[in-house]
Amino acid sequence: MWVPRLLRTIKQHTQFTRQISARIVNGTNIEVQPEDGKPEKLIFPSVWLRDNCLCDECFHGSSKSRKLDWDNFDTRIKPVDLVADGKEKQVVVRWSDHHESRFTLEWLKDRSFQKEKQEEYLREFYRPETQHWSGKQFQDIARHFNYEEVMSQDSTLMQWLQSLAVHGVALLRNAPLDEGVVRRLAERVGFIRRTTYGEEFVVQAKPGAQNFAYLSLPLPLHTDLPYYEYKPSVNILHCVVQTDSPGGSNMLVDGFHIADILRRDYPEDFERLSRVIVDWNDIGSEDGRKFHNIWRAPVICLDAEGRYTRVNHSVPQRDSHFNVPLAEVLPWYESYARFVRLAIADSHAFKTQPGDVLTFNNIRLLHGRTGYDDSEISPRYIVGAYLDWDIIYSRLRVLKNKIQRKPQ
Amino acid sequence: MWVPRLLRTIKQHTQFTRQISARIVNGTNIEVQPEDGKPEKLIFPSVWLRDNCLCDECFHGSSKSRKLDWDNFDTRIKPVDLVADGKEKQVVVRWSDHHESRFTLEWLKDRSFQKEKQEEYLREFYRPETQHWSGKQFQDIARHFNYEEVMSQDSTLMQWLQSLAVHGVALLRNAPLDEGVVRRLAERVGFIRRTTYGEEFVVQAKPGAQNFAYLSLPLPLHTDLPYYEYKPSVNILHCVVQTDSPGGSNMLVDGFHIADILRRDYPEDFERLSRVIVDWNDIGSEDGRKFHNIWRAPVICLDAEGRYTRVNHSVPQRDSHFNVPLAEVLPWYESYARFVRLAIADSHAFKTQPGDVLTFNNIRLLHGRTGYDDSEISPRYIVGAYLDWDIIYSRLRVLKNKIQRKPQ
Repeated sequence: MWVPRLLRTIKQHTQFTRQISARIVNGTNIEVQPEDGKPEKLIFPSVWLRDNCLCDECFHGSSKSRKLDWDNFDTRIKPVDLVADGKEKQVVVRWSDHHESRFTLEWLKDRSFQKEKQEEYLREFYRPETQHWSGKQFQDIARHFNYEEVMSQDSTLMQWLQSLAVHGVALLRNAPLDEGVVRRLAERVGFIRRTTYGEEFVVQAKPGAQNFAYLSLPLPLHTDLPYYEYKPSVNILHCVVQTDSPGGSNMLVDGFHIADILRRDYPEDFERLSRVIVDWNDIGSEDGRKFHNIWRAPVICLDAEGRYTRVNHSVPQRDSHFNVPLAEVLPWYESYARFVRLAIADSHAFKTQPGDVLTFNNIRLLHGRTGYDDSEISPRYIVGAYLDWDIIYSRLRVLKNKIQRKPQ
Repeated sequence: MWVPRLLRTIKQHTQFTRQISARIVNGTNIEVQPEDGKPEKLIFPSVWLRDNCLCDECFHGSSKSRKLDWDNFDTRIKPVDLVADGKEKQVVVRWSDHHESRFTLEWLKDRSFQKEKQEEYLREFYRPETQHWSGKQFQDIARHFNYEEVMSQDSTLMQWLQSLAVHGVALLRNAPLDEGVVRRLAERVGFIRRTTYGEEFVVQAKPGAQNFAYLSLPLPLHTDLPYYEYKPSVNILHCVVQTDSPGGSNMLVDGFHIADILRRDYPEDFERLSRVIVDWNDIGSEDGRKFHNIWRAPVICLDAEGRYTRVNHSVPQRDSHFNVPLAEVLPWYESYARFVRLAIADSHAFKTQPGDVLTFNNIRLLHGRTGYDDSEISPRYIVGAYLDWDIIYSRLRVLKNKIQRKPQ
């Protein structure tokens, strides 16, 4: 029988109260039972508890950081006594190094080592799980938000960033038509990610009169700046003026969805595109300063668990240097051509209107633009900037803490 | 016999000249023989050559980028005729799609598919190979440069950046003592990498500091900002005022060297530290804006080939959330404690003087500071900023192109 055995053990090690109990298990773990109506047992490794002691000597409260002397940290530390304090809802541990630590039940619960709890914490608070979509599903997944609401209401800001994290795309509407919108929006989140090309950038067809043809060529699907190890995370494209010509539409594809298709239906292509390292490059100059950017990475980048970390694709920014064995070349081209065909077939086109701000994940989505007939009467003027995921997720966590009282 | 057979084959496919010859091999590769005295044969896949056609229709000269219509690219393209033009030292290919491409021998040689040539290109031009060092070797590997020379002479700038890339550390001397030095230096390379904490930062003892670094206590070995996916690459620390107290020394350790020791002598610890994912975090506020940064990554990060991509270590910035299975916790702590002990034992301490600018790779090195006795008479004032490798390597490639005429 479970209960009597536990009671006997607790009596040896802890004060027993109505609300909370704790015991030492095998000398290395501490088991806490909240007894709040659930048969839940929380088990914590002693070494981890000692490492995370929250007393003033071990923890710096104002910076919420560990300051314990780790140069002399003893991993063989043992709990020698345990008090389950039901009144304060905390566990007090006395250690073999004569130190004493106190942990509230709430703090402990937030740091449960149960797999489901850890997965929930990571999914809800670290980084939301992505949901992949096909072009046909675009209208169902694409969320719209009002620009002014995003700027003034934290809950709308949170929803926009969450949507961007989950689906990789979201549209803001009714933004003013001045050139400061992307900066104000970026600063509402954090700050602009600067690149070789500066902070804000303008996308427009170069001067009409001097230009031989007023046509602006179609821009094939691509990701921006694949030639950076630290590729900018999120693209913000503010439509200030849109062309009246039939073209100038944005095209978007969920690169993770294309990777899903390859993984399922064409495993050899998937394997090749996620293994063979491609040289991405950009050579030029900006503000009189030359640059020569190169980053080497596969088209589909995976982490050690096989999760997508990044998609790279760009016709102009793939280097003519291709540092792979000769025998890999043709098979890789065939796999890459399949990736490109699948992406084109799945792309969703739509045209933003003045006041729209299109935001999307540049690590994951491919984007492009249909050709358009630009002229002085029918110009097209888009202002863009980048934001980084590090900065976006930080803001999203702060908002979740504030609005949903998520754990710290 | 090799020569007669080659001659026969060439006659079928190419004009034969004294200086250069070429033939189609198996219909999919093109073999070029420079005949400049070496028995060197260069083999290029046809699909790659067609993809990299340099004509105005396929290649945009001013941005040095491919503009070929890849949406309709045919990977089954075949060369139908070949001309080895000895006078112009180029190969002309006529394709099954009726297109014609020209490649100079020089361009082809720069893109050789020979393994040794590829390795040489990557080592010399993409990213230099790192050389790891123990604390005892510090004096042998640490290079010193004159600040004014770095600012005015491209060759010295190149040497500094190369040294930083190879050894992960370099010292500049005789910089002025104004607060603009780190910005001017960063802008000599590219631009400052902004973080949650802004662009420049000042390290001095501050009462009631939010950040652990701003106390005069000893600062244990760590890497900066491990809680960023896009961790700042290089630390620039300009010593403006140094304390007269015995403390305030910098400590440096080559984290890749410590990883080498673990890999060789303690493979189980190495495996654990390169596999178990740790939560790194930073919670606080800057300029009235709250942040909550988290990045999850092992202490030793490896790429698919087992090369080091990053080392993470920080006592204050390791989260109390530790999302691993219970059974992993104690073994991980034991491996981590070994890493910390090895790093401490190997650390090299030295004290910068006013006018010194210490620069080091934050992805690779651990740094710390001995405690010091600060006072109004004996202050310590360091101005810091970060630079990113993407930007540094770009600059280094431009300099190598200019000074050493490396290939583009």
